[in-house]
Amino acid sequence: MKKIEDCTFGVVGLGLMGGAISLALRGKTRCILACDVDAAVLETAKRNGVIDAGFLDPQEMLPVCDVVYLCLNPLTMLAFLDTWMPSFGTGALLTDIAGVKTPIVTAMEEKLRPDLDFVPGHPMAGSEKGGFAQAKSCVFTGKNYILTPLKRNKAENIEFIKNVIYRMGFSRVTETTAEDHDRKIAFTSQLCHVIAAALIDCEPDSTITRFGGGSFEDLTRIAMLNAPQWTELFLENKRELLRRVAQFEGSLDRLKALIAGERKDDLQAYLQTVRDRRASMK
Amino acid sequence: MKKIEDCTFGVVGLGLMGGAISLALRGKTRCILACDVDAAVLETAKRNGVIDAGFLDPQEMLPVCDVVYLCLNPLTMLAFLDTWMPSFGTGALLTDIAGVKTPIVTAMEEKLRPDLDFVPGHPMAGSEKGGFAQAKSCVFTGKNYILTPLKRNKAENIEFIKNVIYRMGFSRVTETTAEDHDRKIAFTSQLCHVIAAALIDCEPDSTITRFGGGSFEDLTRIAMLNAPQWTELFLENKRELLRRVAQFEGSLDRLKALIAGERKDDLQAYLQTVRDRRASMK
Repeated sequence: MKKIEDCTFGVVGLGLMGGAISLALRGKTRCILACDVDAAVLETAKRNGVIDAGFLDPQEMLPVCDVVYLCLNPLTMLAFLDTWMPSFGTGALLTDIAGVKTPIVTAMEEKLRPDLDFVPGHPMAGSEKGGFAQAKSCVFTGKNYILTPLKRNKAENIEFIKNVIYRMGFSRVTETTAEDHDRKIAFTSQLCHVIAAALIDCEPDSTITRFGGGSFEDLTRIAMLNAPQWTELFLENKRELLRRVAQFEGSLDRLKALIAGERKDDLQAYLQTVRDRRASMK
Repeated sequence: MKKIEDCTFGVVGLGLMGGAISLALRGKTRCILACDVDAAVLETAKRNGVIDAGFLDPQEMLPVCDVVYLCLNPLTMLAFLDTWMPSFGTGALLTDIAGVKTPIVTAMEEKLRPDLDFVPGHPMAGSEKGGFAQAKSCVFTGKNYILTPLKRNKAENIEFIKNVIYRMGFSRVTETTAEDHDRKIAFTSQLCHVIAAALIDCEPDSTITRFGGGSFEDLTRIAMLNAPQWTELFLENKRELLRRVAQFEGSLDRLKALIAGERKDDLQAYLQTVRDRRASMK
């Protein structure tokens, strides 16, 4: 594998994440190309020096890329790969950012062109502000990144992607299976988004924020989600997500019973255990 | 009423909030006295110039105070007032910080000494780090403050407390009834703490944070709560809190059904509505 600085990177989809990744790779690669359906976004990115060239037609970009960063919603990405698989350059390395991994890994184990490699990944970073214009608001410093390698991945390609990730500023890369990723992300990310959405759904009065002291704001910021993207993520990881919702409901029921029964000592013990556990999480 | 700068302020309870209030009032009053059960905390506060004098015995402090800031947990404060009511100086103005207001207002309407005034309040600020040593971590700038006046409050005393609040850096004071406060706080604060606690309760694996991307961290930071204090707040506002939990469960059920039924369009519409509503909240 070439060095990062000698590689031509292609970014497919110049939204919030594609834009943030382009910005984070700026000056660290030979050049950065991007393709998107939005000509104005490509033009802005080129004018601002975020990319070297923009393409509406993937066929013009894919063949010359050493590394392709697929920054699309999961199902859009799978459809993109079905269409453009023949167009990648020989021996190219692909990676992605999809927030659900089992469907991606399953598809790629089956469909990936034999000469290509594809290291599935999930940058644990984002912003409630969407789109390329907000890419700067998406900060990678100190953030987590998960890789869910395919059985066929070459070790050197996993290493290469890890180097790219650290070079962009992420601080911790965890390798695991797609199934483990989807189980854990259902909790740390999807369940949290479900809770934030339900919280906002149950309060129609927007002046409620006069009574906010930070908790409500912190718990509901992520309710400003990208609706089509999260619809896809929830449905593609439905089984694990619903399992986590049920688990959360169990804990909530236990807490509710302590409050309803005015079991002061047990309630305080529950809260103290929770406090200590959260404080031990790094 | 005197001007703030001519008043002797007494702070009862030099924990996180009592400490933060003392710090915020520093240099803006004639002097700041404090009483606490912890001699070491009083000593530290005096040595650091946060207070002018510290007292273990309220009897030595209360009689000389023009304004008394009661910074205790709700039930502890009510017990304190039962004991020390005779000790306040003639015509003194009292205020508090309790996170639940109906029990306080009910008790004060009945028990307050006729020559005193008591303006019940709730600063919507705090920190997951407790105690006087962390007082600096509790920032008031830009925060909300709720007042739930008694029927008997003199208008000039409400004005005085509002001035104190703005002088400390808060940006918005809302006046309402104790009942309205408790209904709304059950949602913006207590329900959020219940959710954060339940989230942590249902995941025993502390390495789950390797899969965190900010959502989980934001939703559970407040799980690092003060267990005795929140036990009291939950139980003292039990009825409203359980009503809000039930409301939240209703919204969660609706969302769960959309996911389980794979009703893609309805799910996306739910999420879009939520996104727009949260974005409109200032």
